[in-house]
Amino acid sequence: MAAFPEISKINYEGPESRNPLAFKHYNADEMVEGRSMRDHLRFSVVYWHTFRGTGADPFGAGTMQRPWDDGTDSVENAKNRVRVAFEFIEKLGAPYYAFHDRDVAPEGGSLSESHDNLQAVAEVLKEEQQRSGVKLLWGTANLFSHPRYMHGAATSCNAEVFAMAAGQVRKAIEVTHELGGEGYVFWGGREGYQSLWNTDMRREQAHLAKFLHMAVDYAKEIGFQGQFYIEPKPKEPTKHQYDSDAAACLNFLREHGLKKHLKLNLETNHATLAGHTMQHELEVAGAADALGSIDANTGDLLLGWDTDQFPTDIYVTTQCMLAILKYGGLTTGGVNFDAKVRRESFEPIDLFYAHIGGMDAFARGLKIAAAIRADGRLDEMLKSRYASWDSGLGAEIEQGRHTLASLEQHMLERGEAAPNASGRQELLENIVNEFI
Amino acid sequence: MAAFPEISKINYEGPESRNPLAFKHYNADEMVEGRSMRDHLRFSVVYWHTFRGTGADPFGAGTMQRPWDDGTDSVENAKNRVRVAFEFIEKLGAPYYAFHDRDVAPEGGSLSESHDNLQAVAEVLKEEQQRSGVKLLWGTANLFSHPRYMHGAATSCNAEVFAMAAGQVRKAIEVTHELGGEGYVFWGGREGYQSLWNTDMRREQAHLAKFLHMAVDYAKEIGFQGQFYIEPKPKEPTKHQYDSDAAACLNFLREHGLKKHLKLNLETNHATLAGHTMQHELEVAGAADALGSIDANTGDLLLGWDTDQFPTDIYVTTQCMLAILKYGGLTTGGVNFDAKVRRESFEPIDLFYAHIGGMDAFARGLKIAAAIRADGRLDEMLKSRYASWDSGLGAEIEQGRHTLASLEQHMLERGEAAPNASGRQELLENIVNEFI
Amino acid sequence: MAAFPEISKINYEGPESRNPLAFKHYNADEMVEGRSMRDHLRFSVVYWHTFRGTGADPFGAGTMQRPWDDGTDSVENAKNRVRVAFEFIEKLGAPYYAFHDRDVAPEGGSLSESHDNLQAVAEVLKEEQQRSGVKLLWGTANLFSHPRYMHGAATSCNAEVFAMAAGQVRKAIEVTHELGGEGYVFWGGREGYQSLWNTDMRREQAHLAKFLHMAVDYAKEIGFQGQFYIEPKPKEPTKHQYDSDAAACLNFLREHGLKKHLKLNLETNHATLAGHTMQHELEVAGAADALGSIDANTGDLLLGWDTDQFPTDIYVTTQCMLAILKYGGLTTGGVNFDAKVRRESFEPIDLFYAHIGGMDAFARGLKIAAAIRADGRLDEMLKSRYASWDSGLGAEIEQGRHTLASLEQHMLERGEAAPNASGRQELLENIVNEFI
Amino acid sequence: MAAFPEISKINYEGPESRNPLAFKHYNADEMVEGRSMRDHLRFSVVYWHTFRGTGADPFGAGTMQRPWDDGTDSVENAKNRVRVAFEFIEKLGAPYYAFHDRDVAPEGGSLSESHDNLQAVAEVLKEEQQRSGVKLLWGTANLFSHPRYMHGAATSCNAEVFAMAAGQVRKAIEVTHELGGEGYVFWGGREGYQSLWNTDMRREQAHLAKFLHMAVDYAKEIGFQGQFYIEPKPKEPTKHQYDSDAAACLNFLREHGLKKHLKLNLETNHATLAGHTMQHELEVAGAADALGSIDANTGDLLLGWDTDQFPTDIYVTTQCMLAILKYGGLTTGGVNFDAKVRRESFEPIDLFYAHIGGMDAFARGLKIAAAIRADGRLDEMLKSRYASWDSGLGAEIEQGRHTLASLEQHMLERGEAAPNASGRQELLENIVNEFI
Repeated sequence: MAAFPEISKINYEGPESRNPLAFKHYNADEMVEGRSMRDHLRFSVVYWHTFRGTGADPFGAGTMQRPWDDGTDSVENAKNRVRVAFEFIEKLGAPYYAFHDRDVAPEGGSLSESHDNLQAVAEVLKEEQQRSGVKLLWGTANLFSHPRYMHGAATSCNAEVFAMAAGQVRKAIEVTHELGGEGYVFWGGREGYQSLWNTDMRREQAHLAKFLHMAVDYAKEIGFQGQFYIEPKPKEPTKHQYDSDAAACLNFLREHGLKKHLKLNLETNHATLAGHTMQHELEVAGAADALGSIDANTGDLLLGWDTDQFPTDIYVTTQCMLAILKYGGLTTGGVNFDAKVRRESFEPIDLFYAHIGGMDAFARGLKIAAAIRADGRLDEMLKSRYASWDSGLGAEIEQGRHTLASLEQHMLERGEAAPNASGRQELLENIVNEFI
Repeated sequence: MAAFPEISKINYEGPESRNPLAFKHYNADEMVEGRSMRDHLRFSVVYWHTFRGTGADPFGAGTMQRPWDDGTDSVENAKNRVRVAFEFIEKLGAPYYAFHDRDVAPEGGSLSESHDNLQAVAEVLKEEQQRSGVKLLWGTANLFSHPRYMHGAATSCNAEVFAMAAGQVRKAIEVTHELGGEGYVFWGGREGYQSLWNTDMRREQAHLAKFLHMAVDYAKEIGFQGQFYIEPKPKEPTKHQYDSDAAACLNFLREHGLKKHLKLNLETNHATLAGHTMQHELEVAGAADALGSIDANTGDLLLGWDTDQFPTDIYVTTQCMLAILKYGGLTTGGVNFDAKVRRESFEPIDLFYAHIGGMDAFARGLKIAAAIRADGRLDEMLKSRYASWDSGLGAEIEQGRHTLASLEQHMLERGEAAPNASGRQELLENIVNEFI
Repeated sequence: MAAFPEISKINYEGPESRNPLAFKHYNADEMVEGRSMRDHLRFSVVYWHTFRGTGADPFGAGTMQRPWDDGTDSVENAKNRVRVAFEFIEKLGAPYYAFHDRDVAPEGGSLSESHDNLQAVAEVLKEEQQRSGVKLLWGTANLFSHPRYMHGAATSCNAEVFAMAAGQVRKAIEVTHELGGEGYVFWGGREGYQSLWNTDMRREQAHLAKFLHMAVDYAKEIGFQGQFYIEPKPKEPTKHQYDSDAAACLNFLREHGLKKHLKLNLETNHATLAGHTMQHELEVAGAADALGSIDANTGDLLLGWDTDQFPTDIYVTTQCMLAILKYGGLTTGGVNFDAKVRRESFEPIDLFYAHIGGMDAFARGLKIAAAIRADGRLDEMLKSRYASWDSGLGAEIEQGRHTLASLEQHMLERGEAAPNASGRQELLENIVNEFI
Repeated sequence: MAAFPEISKINYEGPESRNPLAFKHYNADEMVEGRSMRDHLRFSVVYWHTFRGTGADPFGAGTMQRPWDDGTDSVENAKNRVRVAFEFIEKLGAPYYAFHDRDVAPEGGSLSESHDNLQAVAEVLKEEQQRSGVKLLWGTANLFSHPRYMHGAATSCNAEVFAMAAGQVRKAIEVTHELGGEGYVFWGGREGYQSLWNTDMRREQAHLAKFLHMAVDYAKEIGFQGQFYIEPKPKEPTKHQYDSDAAACLNFLREHGLKKHLKLNLETNHATLAGHTMQHELEVAGAADALGSIDANTGDLLLGWDTDQFPTDIYVTTQCMLAILKYGGLTTGGVNFDAKVRRESFEPIDLFYAHIGGMDAFARGLKIAAAIRADGRLDEMLKSRYASWDSGLGAEIEQGRHTLASLEQHMLERGEAAPNASGRQELLENIVNEFI
C-alpha cells in the first residue's frame, strides 16, 4: 500500500522536459569537480516539516492532507509514518534525512515513557534505513515545543527543566549514534529571552555552555564521532535567541572553550532574519573554520518571520555552493531541506514539487558555481585586488615587521597612498549573471 | 564676541519651569546613589555633529546657520571654531567633549601637512581645556571620509591606505594623550564590505587585528593609559561592517587576543540598526566585562539609516542607566551625545534645545534607575526567578557535579520537571511604568 | 463559583500605591475635558486573546492555565466561558467587549449547526450583558481560521467559500445587532495573497468590494445602525493583505464607493508592521474623516510579526489620545485591547496585570494629552508654522487665485522665497517630555 | 575629443561572448511578441546619477572620476557635460534620457537667473537630441536639494516656497515640452514630514493637490500632451513621504480628482523600502490602470536606504516585464535606469559596465517573460484557479444577483463549501525557474 500513489497516477503525456515531477538538473551520478552530485549535495529531507507539518499558523488550523496519518499520537501511527516517510525519501532519491526526537515519536507522560516511545520508533527507523539505504544526516532533540520549555531548556530559570533537557538530549544522542547519524544539531529555539526585565543573561549563557560541555563529554563516553553543530537564529519564537547569528555563536563558543567541538549549521532564513545574507554567514563560518552544514530554504526578506520556503532562487543556491566548494565541500554536513510547503499547498504531491524544485535549484547552483570556478575570472579579480599585500609594504605588514610609527614614517615620505582601483562591483555582478 | 548670543537675547518671561533653555532634571551637583549627577553621567559633546554638521543629506545641501564659521577649510577658521565650541560646551555645562582628528583640523595636502594642522589646532584645544576645565572624553581618527578610504582603512585592499591610516592613528593617539583624553575610540566606518564578490573577509579581518595590536603597542610605548574602545555598527556607509554588533566585536576581539585591550562603545542607533535593543547590547557588553562608554542618541526604528537623533525617550535612558549602574557605573567612559539636530533645526539655539533635552532625558533616566534599584522589586523578582539554581539540583549543576546521564537519572525518577512560574512580563512592565 | 479568586486571595499588605492590582491612573468617573474617563476611553476587552488564547506559537504548544475551561469544543463549555468572561470584565471595570463569532461559540459541522451554536451562546451573552451592564463594542466574523478560508474568504478563488463567508457574516451582523453592538469590524486576515503567481488581484478586490456592499445593504435592511469598520494590517498570516495600511484601505474604499459606509479600526501593531507609526495612521485616518476605533496594543519594532503586546508605552498612548481628542473623541469606537499576555504569563492573574497596565497607560495618555492641549504651546507652534498660508500669498493660493505662471511671476519679482523658520523638532520633543 | 575613450582603448582579445563591454542579450532590433526590443524596453539613461553623481555619501566625500567636468557650477561646464552625456548615451545605444532641471543647469542666484541657465543648456540638449536621435523620456524639477525646500516644496509651511516651486515647475514643463519630452514626473522628495509634532498633514496634502492641478492646467494651456507621473517612495530623505507607495498615491489622486491626469512611475528600490515587492506595486498600478513607467534599479533588501543599484536580478526583471506585457506594454513610459554605480566604482568605464549589465538583465527579463507567456502554463493555472467564478454561483455573484441572505441560503443547503484546490505555489515557482 503506497502512500504516494500520485506519481504513477499522473498521466503526464507531454515531453519529459515539461514533467513537473522529473528532475531537470539534479543527476545523482553526474560528476562535478571530480565528485558526484550526490556526494556534493548530500540532500536531506527533514522529518518535522515534511512529515509532521500540519499547515497550522498563528491565525488558522492545519490544512495538510496526509491520508496515511490516523491523526493520533500513538506509537503505532508514528511507526507507520516512518514507513511512509522512507517511501517518500526513496522515491525522491534523497540520500539523507534528519529528525527531532519528538518528530518521530510521541512525547510520553514521563521521561521514561518518552524514551520508550523513541526507542520503539527508532527500531523502525533502523529497519527502514537498512532496507532503503537512506542515512541519517543528523539528529536533534526538540527542546522548545513542550510547555515545560517555555522559559528555555538549558537556559531555563527552572533547574529541573535543564535536567529534563539533559535527559532528553542524552537519549537523542544515543539514538542518533545507534542510527549511524553523521551529526547532531543544537538549535536553541527558546534559549534566549522574551524580556530582559526578567532575565539574567550571563547566568543563562553559562548554563548553556555547561550543557554543551556535558553533551561533548557524553559523546566521547559513548564513542559518538558525529559532528556537533550549533544553529544560529536571531529570534522567533523568543524575542532574542542567544545563538543569534554566526558571529554571536562563535563568540559564545570561544568564550566557553567549545569552538573545537561544534561547527555551525547555517540556515538561509535565519541569516536574513538576522539582517545578513546567507553568503555572509557562510563566509563568517568558513573564515572561522566552522562551516558545517546548511539548512536549505528561503525566507521572504519583506516578512519578519521564519517562512521556511523551499529554496528556488538560483542566485542564492549559487552563492551557497560557491562558499561550500571554497571551504572544501561538505563532509559530515549536508544540504538539508528545512523547508515546508505553503499552508495552501496541502496535497501530498506538493511535497514532491517542493523537494524536486529545491534539489534542482541546488543542482543548478552547484553547476553554476563549478562553472564560475572553472572560468576563473572572479577568483582572479579577487586575488589581484589584494596584490599590494602580496609583496613590498603589504607583505612586510603581514609579516609583523611594522609599527604605527614605521608606517607613518613611510607615508610621511610618500605623502599620499597609491591610487585605489575601482571596486568593479557592477562588472562582477555582470560576470556572475553570465553563469546564471 | 560671543557666538551664542541667543540665550541672553531671549526675553523669556514665563515661569522658569517653562523656560526651554533651563534644565528641569539635570543638576550636576545633585547626589544619586552617593555620587554626583555630573560624575554619574559624564556628559560629552561631540565635535563632529555639533560643530561640523552641515545639515546636508543624500538629497540636499547643508542648511545649518553657523555664523562664526567662515566656510573655509583654513586652520584659522578651525582654531576660531574651537573657541566657539568651548563657549557652547561651557554654557551648556557639559564636562567633556570628543572629536575626530579631521573634525577639529583640516586634512592637508599630505600626511605631514595634516599632522601640522592637527597639532596647530590641538594647541588651541589645550588652551581652551585649561581655561574652561572641559575635558576630553576620547579622541579618534576619521578613517572613512577621505576617498582614499573608499575600500576601508585597516581593511583596505590597498596596503598603503592601511599605512596612511596607521600614520593618522598614531598622531591621533598622540594628540589624545597630550590633551589628557580618557579614552580612544575605533569606529570602523568602512571596515567591512560593499560586495562579497570582491572581498577576502578573513584577510581583511586579520589586517584589522594587526592594526589594533599596533595601536595597543603604541599606547604602551608612549604611556597612554586611556581606555581603547571599539564601536559596533552593522552597516552604513558599507553594506556590512565587521564590528556589526556587540557579539561580533567580542568574537573578533577574542579571536585575535584583543579582548583585554578594548572595551565597547555602544550606541543606541547602532544597536537598533543591528536589530537589537540598546538594553540588549548593554547586557551583552556588561556580561562580558566590556561595557565601556555609550554614544547617547536615538534612531528611528522605522527608518533604516543612522538618524542620530537626540535621545528623548525616557524608557531608553532608564534602561541605559540601569545597565550602567548594574555594571558599576561609568569610569573612563561617558554619556556622549553622538547626535545631531535635524536638518530643519538649523539655528544655533537648536543646539541648546537638543542638548538640554538629551541631558534632561538622561538625568531622568538616572533618577528613575536609582529609584527602581532602591525600590528593589525588580531585582528581587529577577533573583527569585532563578532560585532553583541557588541550591539543590541547580547548585549541583553549577558546581559541575552532573552529567547528562546523572541528570537523566534524576528526571527519570521525578518523571516531570517542577512546575514553571509565570514570567510576569506584564507585571514587570507595569512596575517599570510606576517609575516613569 | 468565581473563576478569578486570585484577587481576593492575595494578602497584599503594602501601601495601596504599590498594589499591582489597583489602578493608579484610571478612574472611570474622573472628568477630563468635560467628559468622564470611562466615556473618553471606552475600554473594551477582547474575547479572542483573553478568553480563547492558548499561548501556542509556531514553535510550541499552549501554556495558558484556564481552570474554568474543560478543554472541549462543546457549546456548554462555551456558555460557561461566557460567565467567566463577564466576571473578569466586571471585576476589571471595562465597559465593553468585542468578539468574533467563532470565539464565543464553536464551529459546527455545517453552516446551520454553526449558526445554532452561535445563537445559543449569544443568549448567554445577552443575559450577561443585561446582568452586568457590560456592552458590546463590536462584533466580527472569523473568516481566517477554518481551512476553507486558506485562499481568503471574500477574496477566495473558490466562489462557494465566498458564499460561506457571506452566510457567516450575515449571522454575525444579526447577532451583533441583537446584542446592541455599536459597531462591526471587517479584518481581512486572509484577504490578500501568498504568491502573486497564482493571484488575480483586480478580480479578488472587486469581489471584496461586492462583499462589503452586500454587508452594507444587509445592515440597512435590518436596521443595524452600528458603525462598520475596516481594519488595516499589511501581512501575517498572508504575505500581503489588501487592507495593508490606512491609505490602502482608503484607496480601496474610494475606488469602490464604500468610503461613506466604513471607518477605520486602527491597531498599533498593524501600523508598525506596515512601517508606520500609530500616530501616522491616526492622522491619515483622521484627515480623511475616517478615524473610527482603535485596537490598543503594542508591537515590538524589532520583531516582524504581530506580537500583540499590551500597551505600556506612555509616549504611544499619549499620541493616540492626542489624535483622538483632536478628531473629536471616540463616538462609536473604543480603546479595544487586542492584546495578549505573553506565552510565559500563563496564570489567570496575569490577565489582570496586563489589562490594568494597559488601562493605566491609556489613562495616563489621556491625562497627558489633555494637559498638552491645555498648555497650548504645541498647538500654537503648529499654527504659527503655517502662518504664511493664513493671509497674503498663501491665502490667495488656498482660495484658488493662482496659477503656476502667476506664482512664477510673483517669485521672479521676489527672486527668492522668504526665509524658512527652524522646524524645532528637538524643542517640540522636549515640550512633550515635560508632560510625560 | 571623446570623453569615453576607454571602449576603444581596451585591447580585448578574448571571445566576444566574454567581452564585458558587449551586449549578450539586448539587441535593439530583435523582435519579441511582434515588437522590437528597442520599443519594448525604451531604455533611458538618467542625467542625475550618471552625469552628476559624485559618489559622496553621508560618511564620505565624492570619488567619481569625471575628467570632462571642470568641477565648477558654470553654465559652460554644464553645456560641455551635455555633449559628453550624449556621447555616452549614443555609445550605449539607449534611445532615451531623463533629467531634473537642476541636473542639467546650475541653480542661479534668483529664479530668473536659474531660468536663464536652464534655457541656455536646453538649447544644447535640443541640438544634441537632433544630432543623435536620442529622445527625452521625461523631465522633472528638483524640488528637494536646495535648502529652501527643507520643509517641502508644494507642502512647505512657507507659502513662498510653494510659489518658488511653482515657478520652477512651470519652467521645467515648458522646457520638457520644447524638448519633445514624452512625460513629466513628480517625485515629492520632501513632500512629507520629519515630525508629526510640527505637521498639518491635511493642509499640506491639500496644497500638494492644488499644485498638481495647476500643473495639469498649465500643460493643457501650452498643449503639452506628455504623460504626467507621480512616483511613490515611502521615506528618505523625509521620515515619511506622502506618496509612500502605489496605493497611497492612488488614494491621494482619487481624493483630489487627479487620477485621470497622472499615472505612476514605479521604482524597484522604492517598492522594497515600502515593504512591497516591485511585482506587487506593478500589479497595484496595473489593476488601477495607472501603470505608467518604471525606474529600473535594485535596492538591497537588508539595507534601509535607497541604494539605487543597477538591476541585475533576472527574477525581478522578468517580473517587471511580465507585468508590463500583461498591462499592454510601455507606451509613453520607459525602463529608466534610476541607478548609480557604487561609490567605489569610480571610473567612467564603470558607467558602461553598469548600464550594459542593466540592459542585458532587462533584455533577458523580456525574453523570459515572452517565453512564459508563449508557454501558457502560468496563465492557464491562474485562469483555472478562478474557474468557479466563471459560471454558476460565482458568475451570479459577479453579476450582482446575490445578497448575504441568498448566499447564506445557498450554503445552508450545501452545508460546506466545495473543496479547495492546492495553491501550488512551489510548482509555480518551479515553472518560473524553468525559464530563468
